[in-house]
Amino acid sequence: MAQMSIEAMEVFLAEHFPQGKDYGRVESIGHHSAMLRLNPADAHLRPGGTVSGPAMMALADVAMYVALLGEIGPVPLAVTTNLNINFLQRPAPDMDLLAEAKLLKLGKRLAVGEVTIYSEGEEMPVAHVTCTYSIPPGDSRPND
Amino acid sequence: MAQMSIEAMEVFLAEHFPQGKDYGRVESIGHHSAMLRLNPADAHLRPGGTVSGPAMMALADVAMYVALLGEIGPVPLAVTTNLNINFLQRPAPDMDLLAEAKLLKLGKRLAVGEVTIYSEGEEMPVAHVTCTYSIPPGDSRPND
Amino acid sequence: MAQMSIEAMEVFLAEHFPQGKDYGRVESIGHHSAMLRLNPADAHLRPGGTVSGPAMMALADVAMYVALLGEIGPVPLAVTTNLNINFLQRPAPDMDLLAEAKLLKLGKRLAVGEVTIYSEGEEMPVAHVTCTYSIPPGDSRPND
Amino acid sequence: MAQMSIEAMEVFLAEHFPQGKDYGRVESIGHHSAMLRLNPADAHLRPGGTVSGPAMMALADVAMYVALLGEIGPVPLAVTTNLNINFLQRPAPDMDLLAEAKLLKLGKRLAVGEVTIYSEGEEMPVAHVTCTYSIPPGDSRPND
Repeated sequence: MAQMSIEAMEVFLAEHFPQGKDYGRVESIGHHSAMLRLNPADAHLRPGGTVSGPAMMALADVAMYVALLGEIGPVPLAVTTNLNINFLQRPAPDMDLLAEAKLLKLGKRLAVGEVTIYSEGEEMPVAHVTCTYSIPPGDSRPND
Repeated sequence: MAQMSIEAMEVFLAEHFPQGKDYGRVESIGHHSAMLRLNPADAHLRPGGTVSGPAMMALADVAMYVALLGEIGPVPLAVTTNLNINFLQRPAPDMDLLAEAKLLKLGKRLAVGEVTIYSEGEEMPVAHVTCTYSIPPGDSRPND
Repeated sequence: MAQMSIEAMEVFLAEHFPQGKDYGRVESIGHHSAMLRLNPADAHLRPGGTVSGPAMMALADVAMYVALLGEIGPVPLAVTTNLNINFLQRPAPDMDLLAEAKLLKLGKRLAVGEVTIYSEGEEMPVAHVTCTYSIPPGDSRPND
Repeated sequence: MAQMSIEAMEVFLAEHFPQGKDYGRVESIGHHSAMLRLNPADAHLRPGGTVSGPAMMALADVAMYVALLGEIGPVPLAVTTNLNINFLQRPAPDMDLLAEAKLLKLGKRLAVGEVTIYSEGEEMPVAHVTCTYSIPPGDSRPND
């Protein structure tokens, strides 16, 4: 079971990451996973109407954060230590983006996950991300 | 359909990548995918009997190469341009490693894929890799 | 000599990347290099007053773009294919960030660079980025 | 001052990483840095006489390990958690490779560095690597 509901997650994000609402909205939180949706606004677009790279990186970072907090509960000091993104194709213009985050490892000190970003309704991803979060000490999870 | 059989792939690898047999053997070639198996020998091990990081990086690189060539046929000049690996947990000692490679993008000039490495029989991966290959001009695949 | 002045670069960025001004301003363009400055506004900050990870990723991406265009001139279709960032320490609160971009390779089809981000006046970097851009065909640079 | 001499480092590597001698020899250990040299043997080469990608990944991993142990002393349980490599150009055939490792961060739990690999005597690098090591608890270094 996820440690936080979508509503609790959005309250937490609004407090600790006030710009987070510009990065996407929480669509679901599952076992070691989360999905975010980005309904692009002007600030996310490049000329031609496709979502910019920085908007996708922010979306992925928050998606991974939500998947992690869904497992360990609200830990504001968890911080990204590494993020690697491959941009695969241009997103379809005027389409929502969906970011599926999945934890690959949940250790005591480090969590690693991957995030796949799709234009809604398309089969092939537009970007793929791997991401590491460092978790502050003081928890009781399994050893790394 | 894969463009190359396992047998053709092994002949090709033996010619163009003579050390490749130390990196793992081709287990299967599928649609945009391949699986390799590494039966560890002394040269792959660290003290304690677990497979070394460099051995896993080599295994992943070759697995991605096989998945790519399985789609585009024998193109010796395809070269790795980027490889990113996250080591997730120590491999189980004395177990084979399986590397599952999957193409995320197959463009005219660039192919991107991910490789997940498992200790055989274990559920959680020991390493996750993303990898980009540059494909030389002169082909007739879709534009990037 | 750089192919574009700071003024020409800012006009180009304003046209092709309208949100770019939120990502930092061009401080200098040199041989295979560029420096950008980010004077943080509320949109860049996390609670506590340090610059957010997504703001640093965007800053690095634009810094690399400026270093590249400084060499090859205004090529709007150059696109990021890979970006890898390591977050090293929290930025100092209320300080400008400086992003130093340096090209490691400038090929016909691919350019690779690194970007180091500092809090102004500090010695140790807050983040380090490597980044690959794909350059569209039709140019006359050396082969990759 | 480095915590370990070249001789002590080679004894340590021979014990804890027996294949390490195939990955390169320690040329120097400095402040937050190290240099390794790889004199290519058949096992490192691809047809055409250039060093293979896996051989360069192994060289970079060991170079970063040496730079780290040079600062913190012999800690056998330090393990690579992430390695990202960009291959920039083919190495010159029949030339030694030099790998310059530099620590970008040395925290209590994580160390991050970059490694630049050159063909000896050439100006432009053949590969660039960033690498993160996880350091086991029980030490007295500054907080991450």
